[in-house]
Amino acid sequence: MDQTKVERKLGKTAKYPKIPEATIRRLSNYLKALEDLETSGEKVASSALIASICTVNAAQVRKDFAYFGEFGIRGMGYNVKDLKYHIKEILGTNREWRIAIVGIGNVGSALLMYKGFLKQNYKIVAAFDVDPVTVVGHISEKMGKPIEILHMDRLKEVVKARNIEVAIIATPAQSAQIVATQLVDANIRGIMNFAPTQIKVPPHVVLRNVFFTSALDNLVYYLSR
Amino acid sequence: MDQTKVERKLGKTAKYPKIPEATIRRLSNYLKALEDLETSGEKVASSALIASICTVNAAQVRKDFAYFGEFGIRGMGYNVKDLKYHIKEILGTNREWRIAIVGIGNVGSALLMYKGFLKQNYKIVAAFDVDPVTVVGHISEKMGKPIEILHMDRLKEVVKARNIEVAIIATPAQSAQIVATQLVDANIRGIMNFAPTQIKVPPHVVLRNVFFTSALDNLVYYLSR
Repeated sequence: MDQTKVERKLGKTAKYPKIPEATIRRLSNYLKALEDLETSGEKVASSALIASICTVNAAQVRKDFAYFGEFGIRGMGYNVKDLKYHIKEILGTNREWRIAIVGIGNVGSALLMYKGFLKQNYKIVAAFDVDPVTVVGHISEKMGKPIEILHMDRLKEVVKARNIEVAIIATPAQSAQIVATQLVDANIRGIMNFAPTQIKVPPHVVLRNVFFTSALDNLVYYLSR
Repeated sequence: MDQTKVERKLGKTAKYPKIPEATIRRLSNYLKALEDLETSGEKVASSALIASICTVNAAQVRKDFAYFGEFGIRGMGYNVKDLKYHIKEILGTNREWRIAIVGIGNVGSALLMYKGFLKQNYKIVAAFDVDPVTVVGHISEKMGKPIEILHMDRLKEVVKARNIEVAIIATPAQSAQIVATQLVDANIRGIMNFAPTQIKVPPHVVLRNVFFTSALDNLVYYLSR
């Protein structure tokens, strides 16, 4: 039995180089389902239950988990807490990620106040805007406490000082590429782009777009069939 | 030559029953790229250019378009305006979709003010909250004009009167399922859920989740490799 097989048997995370993107996406959904289950006080969950919550089939759930090892106890289902731990380990969210938000308009301020991030080890440690003076009062009022919005001039210095690896772009479309270039220059490794435009980054930077209209496009496609 | 082949040759949209989800997702990205190109005054785009903007390979772009027919002129690339039109036709976004937003907190109000929707034929025609009196003043101030936020009690009536087909849930997690059930009862056909929890809807309703943490989970996974 080779090392990989041994690791699977032991329930350890085997390092599979090629896991389909769709599996990664579903793992994130399973994690959400497990958190819901934990909130409801559930200790054990079957693949059928997880599948039903996430609207996929149970075989798919088992297949997705099989990429990483043997989590379940046959006939018993999965221990919710353990499974959550394993998925977080696989995704890399079992440690804190320090994040900056750039562009504190409507979307940026909503993200700044989004409570779901911290629960997932995503810690917003800095917020930047080209016009911090105007936005700071407004946000502080909404947050119920003073909050520091920094000028973009300080990006590189603060990214370094606060150990920031990931940045969220929430600027208007026309500023997104300029900001992305500044972020790359500040050694940001991952960018989540909420600006409604395609941006370019070098291959060593991981980019993910969250286009609100894309989710609607997808929904409407299935409604139109 | 059968009808489908004739339609493809003529550049018409052939109705393919099984288009991969990933293709649908990419089409939405291509559309965004084409809009960027149009904004920059480009009239013609090669598959290589579109691919480069969307960070996929050109063969993938051509393969995705091939599902629907022959859009390009060999050696000339695609007419940006025509291709945009075709993709919109395929996705079903070439007509207006009337949308309600439920839950006008930070995320809901950001979506309410999001300019990108209207450009894409997504028209927000109603906004609901359990506490419209509190939120209305705040939003009106941000919008720079009075805006009507309706009480949830009026959901069913207004959905019917205003011909609303799609709803966006932007409530806290604990209210999302209750709201989803009310939306289904009001004959909403498609739901885009921004609340950070899994919700259940009957099979005839199309549900898409936008979990902010999922995009980060995905990003972090690739950063951790």
